[in-house]
Amino acid sequence: MDGHHASEALMVLFIVFVAAQIGAEIVQRMKLPAVVGEIAAGCAIGPFGLGLISLSEPLEVLAEIGAVLLLFSVGLETSLNDLRRIGKTAMLVGIAGVILPFISGGLWAYGSGFNLAKSMFIGAAFVATSVGITARVLQELKVMDRTESKMILGSAVIDDILAMLLLGLVTSFQATGSVEPLKLSLVIVQALVFIVLIAVMGVRLIKRSSNLLELPINPHSPLTLSIAGCLGLAAASGYVGLAAIIGAFLAGMVMSESQQKHTLEKQMEPISAFLVPFFFVVTGAKVDLAQLASWDMIVTVLIVSVLAIASKLIGCGLAARSLGKRSALIVGMGMVPRGEVGIIVASLGLQAGVFTNSVYGVIIAMSLITSLVGPLALKRLISGHATAEGPAPG
Amino acid sequence: MDGHHASEALMVLFIVFVAAQIGAEIVQRMKLPAVVGEIAAGCAIGPFGLGLISLSEPLEVLAEIGAVLLLFSVGLETSLNDLRRIGKTAMLVGIAGVILPFISGGLWAYGSGFNLAKSMFIGAAFVATSVGITARVLQELKVMDRTESKMILGSAVIDDILAMLLLGLVTSFQATGSVEPLKLSLVIVQALVFIVLIAVMGVRLIKRSSNLLELPINPHSPLTLSIAGCLGLAAASGYVGLAAIIGAFLAGMVMSESQQKHTLEKQMEPISAFLVPFFFVVTGAKVDLAQLASWDMIVTVLIVSVLAIASKLIGCGLAARSLGKRSALIVGMGMVPRGEVGIIVASLGLQAGVFTNSVYGVIIAMSLITSLVGPLALKRLISGHATAEGPAPG
Repeated sequence: MDGHHASEALMVLFIVFVAAQIGAEIVQRMKLPAVVGEIAAGCAIGPFGLGLISLSEPLEVLAEIGAVLLLFSVGLETSLNDLRRIGKTAMLVGIAGVILPFISGGLWAYGSGFNLAKSMFIGAAFVATSVGITARVLQELKVMDRTESKMILGSAVIDDILAMLLLGLVTSFQATGSVEPLKLSLVIVQALVFIVLIAVMGVRLIKRSSNLLELPINPHSPLTLSIAGCLGLAAASGYVGLAAIIGAFLAGMVMSESQQKHTLEKQMEPISAFLVPFFFVVTGAKVDLAQLASWDMIVTVLIVSVLAIASKLIGCGLAARSLGKRSALIVGMGMVPRGEVGIIVASLGLQAGVFTNSVYGVIIAMSLITSLVGPLALKRLISGHATAEGPAPG
Repeated sequence: MDGHHASEALMVLFIVFVAAQIGAEIVQRMKLPAVVGEIAAGCAIGPFGLGLISLSEPLEVLAEIGAVLLLFSVGLETSLNDLRRIGKTAMLVGIAGVILPFISGGLWAYGSGFNLAKSMFIGAAFVATSVGITARVLQELKVMDRTESKMILGSAVIDDILAMLLLGLVTSFQATGSVEPLKLSLVIVQALVFIVLIAVMGVRLIKRSSNLLELPINPHSPLTLSIAGCLGLAAASGYVGLAAIIGAFLAGMVMSESQQKHTLEKQMEPISAFLVPFFFVVTGAKVDLAQLASWDMIVTVLIVSVLAIASKLIGCGLAARSLGKRSALIVGMGMVPRGEVGIIVASLGLQAGVFTNSVYGVIIAMSLITSLVGPLALKRLISGHATAEGPAPG
């Protein structure tokens, strides 16, 4: 790479990074999640928009690194230990929040003419809850210690794990390219063994010997070893036919059992602040808004979004009905935002050639819409709740 | 980028990152600077070694990002304010430590048959002091408060600034490709105006309004705005014919005047721990050891290394002679390591087609040798000093 080429590459990084910051700043001032602004920025500067950037290989690799680090951080917040403390209800909410959206998304896709494998992949994009967005809303409203909040956060852990399992299943299903029962079950078993083995053995290893992460000389060794593990497991997932983010998520989940968990979370923050925006901008840059600008597509986006919202609301709400009607509604609404995880599944689908450009656009739009509707409705429900019945005892 | 391609890209990142960690760990246990191990690791896994990785465009861009962030951090530690507090002697040491190595390196290159422009570029690779390596040695020996230590660190600031100015001159000299006096002086004036303008105006802006960096919503805004500034100035340097690292260095120097300097330093640490190793491994991967494995080349490396050591030692030592003979020797030796900055200049030379593979190898070898000899001699000098005369009063 000569000097001129190097400064062109840096100029692209500059444009992408600045666009992400501007987008995030604008939407956050409108009290919307930052990710919405970053994707919109990508849409604006990308090849389907102003054409300020084109999607080069280095940019794709940076975006991949961003997605991997993002899922590593999500994993870092998903402690297996917490699962034991979660009650039966939270467990049910998490499971219901996976099954109902998966079935409704899958049925919609199958009804729209996709084959079984593709329909399952599309269904998987309906599943994952973006707990980050809801958590921020609950924090802003200062209701993190309420029963509903704990229920939402607890169920989201189950939800994340099940979503990754499901994504593992559908990607390996997709990879075989056939429904030969023997071959398919082999691939699925391989994926499950990989996930369970790493989760169980990794957690056991880290719990027994967190001090292995502290090399005597390198002051950053817990971080650098964790990143090495994250990159390694992300690459390894690919080789067993799983999405790279599954390995990264597992690495994060394993590290969440380490003594260094809080230092790691702190150190991952600036790294993510630098690299994760590349993922969202690249994601947005792949959205062809022109394809969505027809009545047919607008209706499709609306149907899909209503399905996505209703299936979470009904699934999680019913599972949480023992809390009372209004609390069940709050829990259900808290699980609605798909956010970054839905978007990652969509970009995996595009990469794998499962989704067409228009399905990709629909899923991204659905993820954004749920990420907008969820928080707005949640705020209304909780503020209304507080004025109607006074602040909850916690 | 499909799924398989993505996991291959991640596998390369994994190999590079793990090799860097292993290399750094091994050499650090031998009390050598980490950078030596990272470059050796690159040499080992690169196309001229085991061939585990090849140099793809994404890897080159990551390396470029690593170099840019590294120089941003160096700039962050280079406060213009400190310059006022530095005595005349430190100023002289810094200046002498640039002029003598530049002339000796340049003369050697010119004598070896390179033209004037190339000789000046090679001379520039002799100039920059890697104060990071020396600072770590001084810290380990717990002598940071001694006069010599302050002199070394102070002079290194001057040294850094002059080295960047000089690099600016030789790259623009190189870019014109001619010695047309008018054209050349225009390019040089443009480079100088760029550097001085950004340094002076940037520092003034930041001093007056550090609070501009604190956006109301984004908790990471000082960091993200600084990184945006760093990428922007790095890209802009390229467009005025300067090396990208000069812009990054300037951005760091400007930010070192901000109120958020210490937070930024803290936040840059994990980012650098992740990304800077990519630069050194890629640097090492470009070294063709086979080309250095002849008596001729070994003699050349030795001559160049002796020149590099002697010119700093004599230049800085003479300038510091008012401190007494032994202290002057300590100051001179403290300025010997070229480390990462010499290596960056070498890789710029290779990129620009100024250096052949063998000159590149010689400069890298010289940078490594000075980074090994400097600290070892310094330890000996200071420990000898301490036992002979007792610890200095500081």
